[in-house]
Amino acid sequence: MEDYNKILLTIEYDGSGFAGWQRQANFRTIQGEVEKAVSRAVGRETTIWGASRTDAGVNATGQRAHFYNYSTIPAEKFPFVLNTMLPPDVRIRAAREIPEGIHARFSCRGKIYTYRIFNNRHASAMRRHFTTHIPVPADENKMREAARRFLGTHDYAAFQAAGGTAKTTIRSIYGLDVTRQGDDITLVVRGNAFLYNMVRIMAGTLIAIGQDRLSPDCIDEALETGNRLVLGVTAPPQGLELTRIFYDLPGEEPPGDMR
Amino acid sequence: MEDYNKILLTIEYDGSGFAGWQRQANFRTIQGEVEKAVSRAVGRETTIWGASRTDAGVNATGQRAHFYNYSTIPAEKFPFVLNTMLPPDVRIRAAREIPEGIHARFSCRGKIYTYRIFNNRHASAMRRHFTTHIPVPADENKMREAARRFLGTHDYAAFQAAGGTAKTTIRSIYGLDVTRQGDDITLVVRGNAFLYNMVRIMAGTLIAIGQDRLSPDCIDEALETGNRLVLGVTAPPQGLELTRIFYDLPGEEPPGDMR
Repeated sequence: MEDYNKILLTIEYDGSGFAGWQRQANFRTIQGEVEKAVSRAVGRETTIWGASRTDAGVNATGQRAHFYNYSTIPAEKFPFVLNTMLPPDVRIRAAREIPEGIHARFSCRGKIYTYRIFNNRHASAMRRHFTTHIPVPADENKMREAARRFLGTHDYAAFQAAGGTAKTTIRSIYGLDVTRQGDDITLVVRGNAFLYNMVRIMAGTLIAIGQDRLSPDCIDEALETGNRLVLGVTAPPQGLELTRIFYDLPGEEPPGDMR
Repeated sequence: MEDYNKILLTIEYDGSGFAGWQRQANFRTIQGEVEKAVSRAVGRETTIWGASRTDAGVNATGQRAHFYNYSTIPAEKFPFVLNTMLPPDVRIRAAREIPEGIHARFSCRGKIYTYRIFNNRHASAMRRHFTTHIPVPADENKMREAARRFLGTHDYAAFQAAGGTAKTTIRSIYGLDVTRQGDDITLVVRGNAFLYNMVRIMAGTLIAIGQDRLSPDCIDEALETGNRLVLGVTAPPQGLELTRIFYDLPGEEPPGDMR
């Protein structure tokens, strides 16, 4: 039997140049680029398994993905080796060996997403790929107050875009911080797991509440009834960043308030 | 005689897609794009006069430029009108009418530049166009200590790239703040005026000092002798942002410590 180990990567990307995470025949994707680089580095066709299949335009500083390494390259060398082969809009930030029982996606114990809003009459040129521009003023205090309704364990069926494949729609949200600095409103969402487009629907709903276009009660109604139609639109992808993923691995466990 | 007024724009841009500020026949430039939009908006060929001819890759949140407006469009409408015509990597942040005696470039009373460094073994994907990556650790305390040698009025002849056209090389630096947050080192430089590539040579020199490749004494030597060769390399353009420009205009005067 051939010798191998299992490697878990931490991946940063600027999503603006990609048709999302997942490999596609005729489009540039992050999985596609990383698989090409890993396959070249280890000298054989290698599949990588991502923790989260982010959409086109979504950014990440803390995406994770694992693969089986049949080469003699030690785990800690992979960031250096792969970063010489990858395009500059994808960077491997870290790599570690993991036990056979850990799977990037199915062993995930919690995630942090960041959603960034630029609330100024005119869009930003420098940050157009990393923020969502909303010209109408939003009251961050109203957003913060409404965000508390998400805390705890709820049925998030209403907060799921068509195309989601989750078996259950029960999710726990441990934190949803809303802060403003000047024209920048930042949402940091911490949860055990997320449905397809869940953070973007939460963000779109909070924006509508901050702009007095929706009542905060729509959140309770949607959580009770599962009705997607009472919520705000799905906020655009470029405001979203996959920030951090937790595992049952030394130094990577979710903090106490995320269990 | 035709009626006109003089309009001063505040311009933000992501420099990564441009061959710099200054109009060129066969390259995409910020001046070229803004002139195209202004000319279309006002219905006649219009030249715009920028405060600073930034190089390819250099970013700005506070570039300024003026033009003569022969149309009936009021000053405060220009950001809205021009932003519908401009590509998304250039945004007009503000516009105001100015007296005939004010010139975007020649009336400048002071400037603030920001230079951003990402000091991590691996480059950033998301911020590759807005930071300079330096993998070798730099000691920000050594950089901050050395930066004090720039303060005051000196002959900056050594801190000028070939191609500079300034009549005098005497410049006053009012502040050079060095801060670190995690892997991010930020330099904020405030001065009355700057020579061609001056901030980038200052940044390259401070980086070399922070990495123990140069002694801080090289700054004094260069200021005394005008010898460029004792300094560090010119730091890359993508770390540089033109942040703010001051004029003798109500609300735009340089603060007390910049006079």
